[in-house]
Amino acid sequence: MILVLKPDTAEADVAPIREALSARGIILQDIVGASTTMLGLAGDTSAVSADWLMTYRCVERIVRVQEPYKLAGRKFHPEDSVFTVRGQAIGGGAFAVMAGPCSVESEEQILAVARGVKACGAGFLRGGAFKPRSSPYAFMGLGLDGLELLKLAREETGMPIVTELLSSEHLDAFAKDVDVIQIGARNMQNFSLLREVGQLKKPVLLKRGLSSTIDELLMAAEYVMAGGSPEVILCERGIRTFETATRNTLDISAVPVLKQKSHLPVIIDPSHATGQWQLVESMSLAAAAAGADGLIIEVHNKPEAALCDGAQSLTPEAFGRLMQKLECVRQALSM
Amino acid sequence: MILVLKPDTAEADVAPIREALSARGIILQDIVGASTTMLGLAGDTSAVSADWLMTYRCVERIVRVQEPYKLAGRKFHPEDSVFTVRGQAIGGGAFAVMAGPCSVESEEQILAVARGVKACGAGFLRGGAFKPRSSPYAFMGLGLDGLELLKLAREETGMPIVTELLSSEHLDAFAKDVDVIQIGARNMQNFSLLREVGQLKKPVLLKRGLSSTIDELLMAAEYVMAGGSPEVILCERGIRTFETATRNTLDISAVPVLKQKSHLPVIIDPSHATGQWQLVESMSLAAAAAGADGLIIEVHNKPEAALCDGAQSLTPEAFGRLMQKLECVRQALSM
Amino acid sequence: MILVLKPDTAEADVAPIREALSARGIILQDIVGASTTMLGLAGDTSAVSADWLMTYRCVERIVRVQEPYKLAGRKFHPEDSVFTVRGQAIGGGAFAVMAGPCSVESEEQILAVARGVKACGAGFLRGGAFKPRSSPYAFMGLGLDGLELLKLAREETGMPIVTELLSSEHLDAFAKDVDVIQIGARNMQNFSLLREVGQLKKPVLLKRGLSSTIDELLMAAEYVMAGGSPEVILCERGIRTFETATRNTLDISAVPVLKQKSHLPVIIDPSHATGQWQLVESMSLAAAAAGADGLIIEVHNKPEAALCDGAQSLTPEAFGRLMQKLECVRQALSM
Amino acid sequence: MILVLKPDTAEADVAPIREALSARGIILQDIVGASTTMLGLAGDTSAVSADWLMTYRCVERIVRVQEPYKLAGRKFHPEDSVFTVRGQAIGGGAFAVMAGPCSVESEEQILAVARGVKACGAGFLRGGAFKPRSSPYAFMGLGLDGLELLKLAREETGMPIVTELLSSEHLDAFAKDVDVIQIGARNMQNFSLLREVGQLKKPVLLKRGLSSTIDELLMAAEYVMAGGSPEVILCERGIRTFETATRNTLDISAVPVLKQKSHLPVIIDPSHATGQWQLVESMSLAAAAAGADGLIIEVHNKPEAALCDGAQSLTPEAFGRLMQKLECVRQALSM
Repeated sequence: MILVLKPDTAEADVAPIREALSARGIILQDIVGASTTMLGLAGDTSAVSADWLMTYRCVERIVRVQEPYKLAGRKFHPEDSVFTVRGQAIGGGAFAVMAGPCSVESEEQILAVARGVKACGAGFLRGGAFKPRSSPYAFMGLGLDGLELLKLAREETGMPIVTELLSSEHLDAFAKDVDVIQIGARNMQNFSLLREVGQLKKPVLLKRGLSSTIDELLMAAEYVMAGGSPEVILCERGIRTFETATRNTLDISAVPVLKQKSHLPVIIDPSHATGQWQLVESMSLAAAAAGADGLIIEVHNKPEAALCDGAQSLTPEAFGRLMQKLECVRQALSM
Repeated sequence: MILVLKPDTAEADVAPIREALSARGIILQDIVGASTTMLGLAGDTSAVSADWLMTYRCVERIVRVQEPYKLAGRKFHPEDSVFTVRGQAIGGGAFAVMAGPCSVESEEQILAVARGVKACGAGFLRGGAFKPRSSPYAFMGLGLDGLELLKLAREETGMPIVTELLSSEHLDAFAKDVDVIQIGARNMQNFSLLREVGQLKKPVLLKRGLSSTIDELLMAAEYVMAGGSPEVILCERGIRTFETATRNTLDISAVPVLKQKSHLPVIIDPSHATGQWQLVESMSLAAAAAGADGLIIEVHNKPEAALCDGAQSLTPEAFGRLMQKLECVRQALSM
Repeated sequence: MILVLKPDTAEADVAPIREALSARGIILQDIVGASTTMLGLAGDTSAVSADWLMTYRCVERIVRVQEPYKLAGRKFHPEDSVFTVRGQAIGGGAFAVMAGPCSVESEEQILAVARGVKACGAGFLRGGAFKPRSSPYAFMGLGLDGLELLKLAREETGMPIVTELLSSEHLDAFAKDVDVIQIGARNMQNFSLLREVGQLKKPVLLKRGLSSTIDELLMAAEYVMAGGSPEVILCERGIRTFETATRNTLDISAVPVLKQKSHLPVIIDPSHATGQWQLVESMSLAAAAAGADGLIIEVHNKPEAALCDGAQSLTPEAFGRLMQKLECVRQALSM
Repeated sequence: MILVLKPDTAEADVAPIREALSARGIILQDIVGASTTMLGLAGDTSAVSADWLMTYRCVERIVRVQEPYKLAGRKFHPEDSVFTVRGQAIGGGAFAVMAGPCSVESEEQILAVARGVKACGAGFLRGGAFKPRSSPYAFMGLGLDGLELLKLAREETGMPIVTELLSSEHLDAFAKDVDVIQIGARNMQNFSLLREVGQLKKPVLLKRGLSSTIDELLMAAEYVMAGGSPEVILCERGIRTFETATRNTLDISAVPVLKQKSHLPVIIDPSHATGQWQLVESMSLAAAAAGADGLIIEVHNKPEAALCDGAQSLTPEAFGRLMQKLECVRQALSM
């Protein structure tokens, strides 16, 4: 951490800062430049808040040199993390494909889709039982009944299930029945939920918030990991920008950047990023080529009858063709 | 709602749409242009999802003509809403100033600040008992003890208290003790919390999310109101943009836009929007001039000792000077 | 074009609109909904400005149904455009790789890089003679001397040259000597330059502006094409967002979206989008997988001695490895 | 300037950096922290490029401590600049109001508007002779004929004229006839135009680009000033964000931030920022309250007949009411 002082700062103004930091065991080093004086802070600065230092009116700027995430960062964990869920690996060379409908609608629907995506090679079944909807008047999902239907589909196909947790009210049900607990983009900074889910010690799929930076995503992962769950899967699902031709802008470069900074697996959600099924194939192939560890894709047996987000769902047939192309690209890259 | 069809769409492809919409009581009108055919939908389209219609592959685009918020919108409620909390009015010509520290730290601190801001003319005491922090290692607030200290300050000064609710765990405590329940920017789309807080039937201060549109803010208000709480105060607190000179970009034009679209009172938070106390005065005056119904401002008796966000806090003296200037501007505008 | 009227608009207010539009040969159709009245406009509305219609105070909203680009759009030109420059094809299944240094620095440098990238399979030599720099004190390129050095390199290697035009002052020199004239991101809406370059009837590489929408990029292409140059290559080079981990955010989904809307070839510039050579390989592979028609990549023989943008330059060796991987991915996708 | 090294960097890797910098007269200081080593650079680092340093692969990050604008910055010019144009002052307590139509359309129109705004107290006449239009098929302004009409209006009213320069082709005409030369948002980084206009040594009104940072705006001003024109007026006119309720988002906090960093006058363009005449009054009052040095406002005598941007134009009557309110707010603030 470096503290840049305002020009012509008197030593009397700096003294209280020196004192306060020394009291916390921080070692200070003066850096006197031609027109700028700085203080270098050495020692454990992870608990030193930049906000607090900025309140000293002689401080012009604070520069953090170290990243504030220790559990999620690659620094103290240089090798890639690999998790295994019901025999399905995520990370470290495996390519995890999670597929299924936006929301679970009926036994017939979820079984049909589950069989379809399994036949095409998907490893995980995704499906929403609780749906976050921006209108209070929209369909909110089948709730716990939806969870039961997902369990049925798991029983039949063997695929682990991935589904979104919206509220601490359902923590127990999720702890008991869900294989990978999804935290959605809108809850990425719902810190009380992050803490609670961390205590379940289950794999967590953490989606990047619409306007969250890569560092904020890693800090959210740090929350979950600090709670006790080391198995966090990061998911890029599009960020909000000025462009309106797609629902969001898929930040494909987040894949290599996250993998530089963190040891956690990184997957892409092309369905929510684009909002259009026509773009899902090209974005899935791009994700694989960019080095992602997997995908989460919406598949529906009857998109035009879907109760939500049908416009971004692939049919099982289109999903099958995509899986074949993905396989070709992945083989090409491993050569 | 208007449905634009793709060029050269066959009637056979449109027929299932006609059927599905007629079954819902929607009346359809064909609009045949030179090179484009459209369907106009009349009737109650509030439950018709654009997502669902987009799954019909002959549909090119959907245009919503009516806004989806009925309780929050001005259409069915043309006059400004005015709420009164412990004798303090918000909306309809009153100018509500909520002031206090980012977080409640001690009895001495909260009482000193409360007395200070009351003496300068603030109407409400704000202060955080539960703090959302992006690092799991940061100070999270005093929790329920902080709430007790706020009550003490209310008892002494008579000012109603405004404080943030982070989790449904504390709903009962807030229902009993808090005058205006704040929903923070990061929870603006925590829909389960919105629904729960709506059921308390208490005034709610709803902050706009960092990357939420004005329409999404109004939909979040609709959630709270649909739950049973008509008294929602909208708060613009800066949006996330590419500019980094300020923490966020204060969207000052949101004030007149929100007041066109909605009858609810609109206040501004210049402290969080800018992140710098030096900018709080000018942004507060701008907010008043733009027609805001009030402000929420951070004030701390010792900013350099604040446990969070001290850099954006005014001293009580600077707050006092601001209140005088605000009074001048408001008088000038009422001439 | 659809014109949505305000609620309770009197026919007397609409009459002047009807009259003004009829005078322009537009046919109007009333669409009367439950709570909204609209006017559908048929006929050639490309010269009808939405701005002008919005001045009628009874108009609430204008919805454009047709896209305003006729030459750049796919509607009247359904097949992909393919251009050939000195025997090198762009578009229609060919994959054009343009490589070279950010700026031409010396004969030795440009010849070394040109030979290096040609040996690895690049089809075009890129290099800046005139450099747009955000500081007036920075190196601005060698100017016309740089152009001479590019010609030397072309003579030796046979590769067509791609270089940026900054000012109409150099139109003649570019018309005579440059194979593909680049219009940079900062000049994408320099309309007088677009018009002038269009009159040269040479291939133009048009970079998307930092905060330009996909539709604005296509309108800029329309300018060049309306001037008389049909051979425009569109280039996505990253857009400005809130994320600061990369210099810009590569909008990879712009590739399939542009190809839906337009027949023009689309290439990606991973070097400027990310600003970091470490990210260039993964983003190049992603671009190929997403269906791009080519790449423009910075390569420098001594990145640490580059006079600009060395941090985003590949060495010829790294470029060679990338070309091999690209070949594998492209073969995989053609299976 | 501070150079943060990667962990475990060997001295052999740093040696070439030390050598290269010493050769430029830079003094280096090692800063050895617990887990990070840094190099502090002292001396004149304004010509040291961060891009160049980043090419050394042992460098993790560069931190610039000093701002790169010397002429535009407040550091070496602490007092506010005040310019006078035909007797009208800008900056330093004066409040400059520039008003007039988006584009000059006819003698009758420009004279009527000029008389109208002068009667209400405007100090400058604005009006476009050359218009940047995103469609090649739209009205481009009357060109040099428009300039003649502006001169007529100046002759009659005495008001100095402000109009936009689009191309170096018209430099001579502007040098001879225009009082304040406007550089529009789309040309803010048209560096060749900036340099040329700087050489005219006339007052320049520089609009912030749609997605330009405050620092980039100041660097563009530096270009003009380095060319020889010290009289630059900065203009905030809305930035591009995700919000679509207004055409752009007026960054009102840019006013105090620019005034902290620079001595140049700062004005606001509420017409282009919002795109809606209904929002112009509130945003103008907010600008005055935030400390702006003036406004540039579109006024048209017949907005519904305007050839461009009528939807954002005030009538002379509405402009007159605004001027009265502005006067009240400015008096209130000077108390």
